[in-house]
Amino acid sequence: MSSRLSTPNIQLNEQGKLHHFLTLEGLKQHHLVEILDTAESFINPNTNEIKKVPMLRGKTIMNLFFEPSTRTRTTFEIAENRLSADISSLDIQTSATKKGESLLDTLWNLQAMQADMFVIRHAQSGATQFFAQHVAPHVHVMNAGDGQHAHPTQAMLDMFTIRKYKGDIFDLKIAIVGDVQHSRVVRSQIQALSILEAREIRVVGPKTLMPESPEALGVHIYHNMEEGIADVDVIIMVRLQNERMTSALIPSEKEFFKLYGLTEARLALAKPNAIVMHPGPINRGVEIESSVADGAQSVILEQVTYGIAVRMAVMSIIMSNAAQLAQHKAEHPLEQEEK
Amino acid sequence: MSSRLSTPNIQLNEQGKLHHFLTLEGLKQHHLVEILDTAESFINPNTNEIKKVPMLRGKTIMNLFFEPSTRTRTTFEIAENRLSADISSLDIQTSATKKGESLLDTLWNLQAMQADMFVIRHAQSGATQFFAQHVAPHVHVMNAGDGQHAHPTQAMLDMFTIRKYKGDIFDLKIAIVGDVQHSRVVRSQIQALSILEAREIRVVGPKTLMPESPEALGVHIYHNMEEGIADVDVIIMVRLQNERMTSALIPSEKEFFKLYGLTEARLALAKPNAIVMHPGPINRGVEIESSVADGAQSVILEQVTYGIAVRMAVMSIIMSNAAQLAQHKAEHPLEQEEK
Amino acid sequence: MSSRLSTPNIQLNEQGKLHHFLTLEGLKQHHLVEILDTAESFINPNTNEIKKVPMLRGKTIMNLFFEPSTRTRTTFEIAENRLSADISSLDIQTSATKKGESLLDTLWNLQAMQADMFVIRHAQSGATQFFAQHVAPHVHVMNAGDGQHAHPTQAMLDMFTIRKYKGDIFDLKIAIVGDVQHSRVVRSQIQALSILEAREIRVVGPKTLMPESPEALGVHIYHNMEEGIADVDVIIMVRLQNERMTSALIPSEKEFFKLYGLTEARLALAKPNAIVMHPGPINRGVEIESSVADGAQSVILEQVTYGIAVRMAVMSIIMSNAAQLAQHKAEHPLEQEEK
Repeated sequence: MSSRLSTPNIQLNEQGKLHHFLTLEGLKQHHLVEILDTAESFINPNTNEIKKVPMLRGKTIMNLFFEPSTRTRTTFEIAENRLSADISSLDIQTSATKKGESLLDTLWNLQAMQADMFVIRHAQSGATQFFAQHVAPHVHVMNAGDGQHAHPTQAMLDMFTIRKYKGDIFDLKIAIVGDVQHSRVVRSQIQALSILEAREIRVVGPKTLMPESPEALGVHIYHNMEEGIADVDVIIMVRLQNERMTSALIPSEKEFFKLYGLTEARLALAKPNAIVMHPGPINRGVEIESSVADGAQSVILEQVTYGIAVRMAVMSIIMSNAAQLAQHKAEHPLEQEEK
Repeated sequence: MSSRLSTPNIQLNEQGKLHHFLTLEGLKQHHLVEILDTAESFINPNTNEIKKVPMLRGKTIMNLFFEPSTRTRTTFEIAENRLSADISSLDIQTSATKKGESLLDTLWNLQAMQADMFVIRHAQSGATQFFAQHVAPHVHVMNAGDGQHAHPTQAMLDMFTIRKYKGDIFDLKIAIVGDVQHSRVVRSQIQALSILEAREIRVVGPKTLMPESPEALGVHIYHNMEEGIADVDVIIMVRLQNERMTSALIPSEKEFFKLYGLTEARLALAKPNAIVMHPGPINRGVEIESSVADGAQSVILEQVTYGIAVRMAVMSIIMSNAAQLAQHKAEHPLEQEEK
Repeated sequence: MSSRLSTPNIQLNEQGKLHHFLTLEGLKQHHLVEILDTAESFINPNTNEIKKVPMLRGKTIMNLFFEPSTRTRTTFEIAENRLSADISSLDIQTSATKKGESLLDTLWNLQAMQADMFVIRHAQSGATQFFAQHVAPHVHVMNAGDGQHAHPTQAMLDMFTIRKYKGDIFDLKIAIVGDVQHSRVVRSQIQALSILEAREIRVVGPKTLMPESPEALGVHIYHNMEEGIADVDVIIMVRLQNERMTSALIPSEKEFFKLYGLTEARLALAKPNAIVMHPGPINRGVEIESSVADGAQSVILEQVTYGIAVRMAVMSIIMSNAAQLAQHKAEHPLEQEEK
C-alpha cells in the first residue's frame, strides 16, 4: 500500500481543517474524533433515529457515480436529505461522456451549475483526488469509494459503531478477516484504527489475499482464523468479491467458508461480548454463517444506520469549516495580502 | 380467488387500525370510509387541486419497484411530495440483487437507512405481505400491486371516483368488464365494492377470462356485454393485457373489441348518466372506443387525479395511527406489562 | 427556415404575456428584456451565486425527456430546485410507451397527476408546440429543445451572457460559427439577436452547413473564418454534431478544425476584448483550441451558470403571468361574459 496516490494535504484548508474528504491518510486523531462526536449529535439517544436538520439548506450536492452502487448512493442521498440539501444524482456511465466530452469538462460543467459538493465513486484509485485538484476553491469533494484506494466514510462509520458498542478504541483488539489486499474498505479501516491508536489490529486471511509487505501496515498477520480472532473485541468480516474467485486467488466459496467463514463455533473464541461487523452486502454461507449475521453479537444493520449519521457529520463539518474560513478572511483582510 | 395469500390481520395494529396497506380483504367499512373522507380533505373543492401539506415532513418513504411502472411510481412520488416526505425511489431489478444479496437482506438494509414506509410493487402475488411480515414494528408497507393478488390503492381511488360522481355506493349497480380472472385490480375492486355494500356487482367477459368458481365472489356473471351493462350506474373497463392474447385466452384484439369493447352504442344501454372508468393505460379500439374514452361520461383522467389524494390519505392515516398508538403506549405503560 | 412549425401566438395569453415558452419567433423585445432582467435578479452580484427562492413552492414541474440529455435536464432540475418546485423527471423512451399508450394519453395522464408545467425535449421539430396545443389551459409547456426547430432557453442564456459581458446588444457585432443549417440553437440565437436588434449578425461556415436561403435570415454569410470573425465583439462557436460528419457534409474533424476551428491566432482577429461562447459540450481540437476554451476571453462555463438563472426567470415569469391573469379574471367577471 504505497503512498503514491496520497497527497493528504489537499484535503485540509489553510486552517488545517477538512476541506475535502478523500482519505484518512494524513488526518489527525482530532479530525476523526470531531467526525464521531458530530455524528453522535445527529442521533436521537432514545429512539436511535437520525434527525432532520436544516444545515445544508440551499446547498447543492451532486452524487457522481462512475461505478454503480445503489446502496452507497442511497445512503448518501438520505444523509443529504436529512441535512436539507438540494440533490442531483448522476449516473455518469450512461450520460455525460456519450457525446465525447472529457471527464474534467463534465466536472467543470457540473461545477458551473452551482454544485457546492461532489460525492464521487469511481473504479480508478486516486480518481477523487484528481477531481479535488481540479475543482474551484469553494467546491468540496467527498470520496464514496475509489478503486482499491480508499473508502473513508465506510471506515468512519465502522469506527463510530465500534465506539458506540465497545467504548474507547485504544483499549480494543480488532480482527479484520478476508480480502485485505484488494479492499479499499480495509485500507481505510486500518488507517482509521491506527490514527485512533487501537491496542491491536489483526488481519486474517489466506496468503493470496494479503498485501506484499504487510509489516508496513503496522498490523499483525494471521493465516489461521482460530488464532486470528482469539480473544478479540471486534471482528470485521470483509466481503469476498466474486472477481477474486474467478481470478483463482481462492479455491472456492466453500473452501473459503471452511477456512475463514465466521461460524458460531469460531465466534466463541473471541471475547464473550465481542461484536461482529460487515460492510455489506453479506454473502451468507461464504464469509459468515446466517445465525451469526442475524445473531445477538451482530451489529451489521446498525452500521448501516450509523453510516447516515457519519456521512451527515462529514458533510456538515466540511461546509461549516468553509463558512468559518470565509468569515475569518472577511475579518482579517490584511493577513491575506501579507502572504 | 382463494384466501391462501391473505393474512389480513397483519395490516391492523393492536387498536384495530391500519398499520400496513396490503389488501382490502378483512378491512371493515369504517376503514374504507376513513380513507375516502381523508382523501376528500386533500382536494380543494373549488379548483380540484390537490393540496400540499406538511404531514410527513422528516419521514422517509422508499418506493421499491421490483416490477417497473412509471405511471404508478410517479403517482406515489407526487403523493409523497405533497405530504412533504423525503423520497427514495429504487429500481430493484437493476441494482440490489446484482451482488447476490437476498431480498430480505436488501429490505433490512434499506430499513436500517431509516425508512419509515416502503411502497412495494412486485410481480409475485403475496410479496408485499411477505415483506410486511419481516419489517421492524415501526416500519409500514404499502402494496402498489403484487402479482395477481391485490392493488388496493387503485381500488380505493376507483371507490373515491364513484362516490364523487354517483354518491353513496350502496345505491349503485356496477359492471366490471374484461379480464376478471388475472387482474389484481379487479380482485381489489370487488372486495372494496363488497365491503361498501354496493347494490349489485356484475362482472362481464368471456368464459376464458372468468375465475373458476365465480359464485364465491358474490357477483353476477355475464358473458354477454349488452346484458351485462344494461341499466348500470358505473362501467369499469379493465385493461386487456397483451400477455393474455399471446396465451390464446382470447382470439384477437379485434374479436375482443367486437364482443366486449365499450362503444357509444353500447354505452347507451347503461343508465343515461352512467360514468365510464378505466385504470389506464387505455388501449383505444381494444377495450374502449376513442369517442367514449374522451366523451362526457368518461372520468378516466379524474381517476388519475383522485389517485394522488387517495394515496396521500392512506399514507397519512397509517402514519397518524402509528403516532396515536405510540402516544397511547406512553400514557398507559402498565397495560403493556400486564399483557 | 420556414415558419411552417411556428404558431407563435399559442405561447402568449390573452394579455399578450408568456403562457408557454416554445420559440423566440413572434416575441417582442420587451418579452426578452423581462427575461434577462428577471434572471439578473436571481444572481447575487457579489458572489455570482444563484439564489434559492420560494416562488414555485407547491407547484409540480415534470421534465419529459424523449431525447436524453443529462446536461440540459440537470440544469432544468437545478433551476426548479432553486425555485422550490416539486420535480418529477421522466425518461419517456424507456417507460410510458412500453404498454402501447399514445403520446397524448401519456401527456394527459401526467397532466391529471397535477402537473403545473412540462419541460419537454423531443427529437422531432414542433413536438413541444404539439403538446402545448393539447394541455389544459392552466398547464404550461417549456421547450428544452425540439428537433432542428428551437432551443429558446439556450438562446436566452446566450443573450444574458452577452449582455453581462458586453452591455447593450444593439451595439455589437456577433459571429456564429459552424453548423448553421441543422442547429436549433443557432435558429433561436439568430431570432433572439434580431429581436434585440444586434448591430450585425454574421454566420460563418462551409456552404454544406448553411441554410438554402440564408438571406431570409437577415444575417451576413461568411465562408471564410478569418473574414467572418474580423472585428467582432462576440464569437459563438457551435458544436459540430458527429451525425453531420458521418453524413459527409464535412470532410473530417481535422479538416473542419483547419478551416473553422477557433485558434488563438484567429481569435486575435476579433476585437481585443471579444468574448468566446459555446453551448457545450465542447469538442476540444475540433471546433475550438483548448487554450482558447480555457482562456481569459472564454465565458463558456459562465454560460452554464447563467443558464440556471435564465431558466428560473422564464419559469417564474410564466407562473406569475398565470396568477396575474387569474386575478384579473376574478376581478373582472363581466369582461369574460361580454367576449
